[in-house]
Amino acid sequence: MNNPEQFLKTHIEKVVPLTDEEAIFIVSHFVLKTFQKGQFIIEEGNEVSDVYFVLSGLVKLVYEDKDAKKHIVSFAMEDWWETDFQAFYTGGKASLSLECIEDTIAYSLSLENFEKLCMEVHKMERFFLRKSIAGHIGSQTRILSFLTSNARERYEQLLLKNPALLQRVPKSSLASFLGVSRETLSRLF
Amino acid sequence: MNNPEQFLKTHIEKVVPLTDEEAIFIVSHFVLKTFQKGQFIIEEGNEVSDVYFVLSGLVKLVYEDKDAKKHIVSFAMEDWWETDFQAFYTGGKASLSLECIEDTIAYSLSLENFEKLCMEVHKMERFFLRKSIAGHIGSQTRILSFLTSNARERYEQLLLKNPALLQRVPKSSLASFLGVSRETLSRLF
Repeated sequence: MNNPEQFLKTHIEKVVPLTDEEAIFIVSHFVLKTFQKGQFIIEEGNEVSDVYFVLSGLVKLVYEDKDAKKHIVSFAMEDWWETDFQAFYTGGKASLSLECIEDTIAYSLSLENFEKLCMEVHKMERFFLRKSIAGHIGSQTRILSFLTSNARERYEQLLLKNPALLQRVPKSSLASFLGVSRETLSRLF
Repeated sequence: MNNPEQFLKTHIEKVVPLTDEEAIFIVSHFVLKTFQKGQFIIEEGNEVSDVYFVLSGLVKLVYEDKDAKKHIVSFAMEDWWETDFQAFYTGGKASLSLECIEDTIAYSLSLENFEKLCMEVHKMERFFLRKSIAGHIGSQTRILSFLTSNARERYEQLLLKNPALLQRVPKSSLASFLGVSRETLSRLF
């Protein structure tokens, strides 16, 4: 991660072209943060002030149920946006936690700065609309996978879609993402 | 459904205020359509040219698996937006079908007009960003319900969130939405 500013600019420019002045203005609204493996970026029950754009590393978005069993909603690695979106956008408390599977470097963007960018740089509203649509489509695909596929098929879909992720995620987290026990995962693969 | 234009204007104004001129310009990009109970608005394998805003009635978004078993991704009723979002935004063929559970009146909006409204009326990009975020959050909530809840609990969540919907959805569709057989649903309730 030599040049975070350039990494973010390149990422945004996949959707909308930016002048150098626009890029500098936009980047100035983000805060660069580093987190260690195992560290919580978001803790359940706390306020969620930021959305995170991952520059390097790997994080997991986790829901802990009433029996203290952990369920993984999603993973995020380089080039992905992640947060507890409900809490972030509505100002509610986090019902999810965001935990680092690897040492992670991310840009954080506060809701205030998100709104400011949307109001002041029309292109950014366009960019966030595209990202939000992609997130929505991704979630619908995951809903379908729960309705139509068993754990083995869900594993194979993930392998096809994102082989790099599979190599980096510990087996226990993978089981939790697929919705099976660690033992079931071992029997399956 | 006495005044569709006013219904759409009121719906958009929950997010962004509109002048009368803006409302007239925006509404002119939509086409009012009526569908009969049982009619397919989107058929699997076809192109998906439009997103639909439901004015009255009830529709279901359905995935049919390789064994011809039907799975319901979501329902949509008055005041909701629905389409096969992946196919609509990417220009691919529909992997889902959209079928009317009741006689339905909806506004359709083509991708071309969606893009045009976003480019020409900045407020509409803002509106669609809010709608897309809400859709993304809704989908994440549903993913969580699959990871953490059984069919009975998913039923109870639906009852809490949208009791009106439950009264209008046939039992067979409800079973398909919850991911259980019609027989299991009968045993549960």
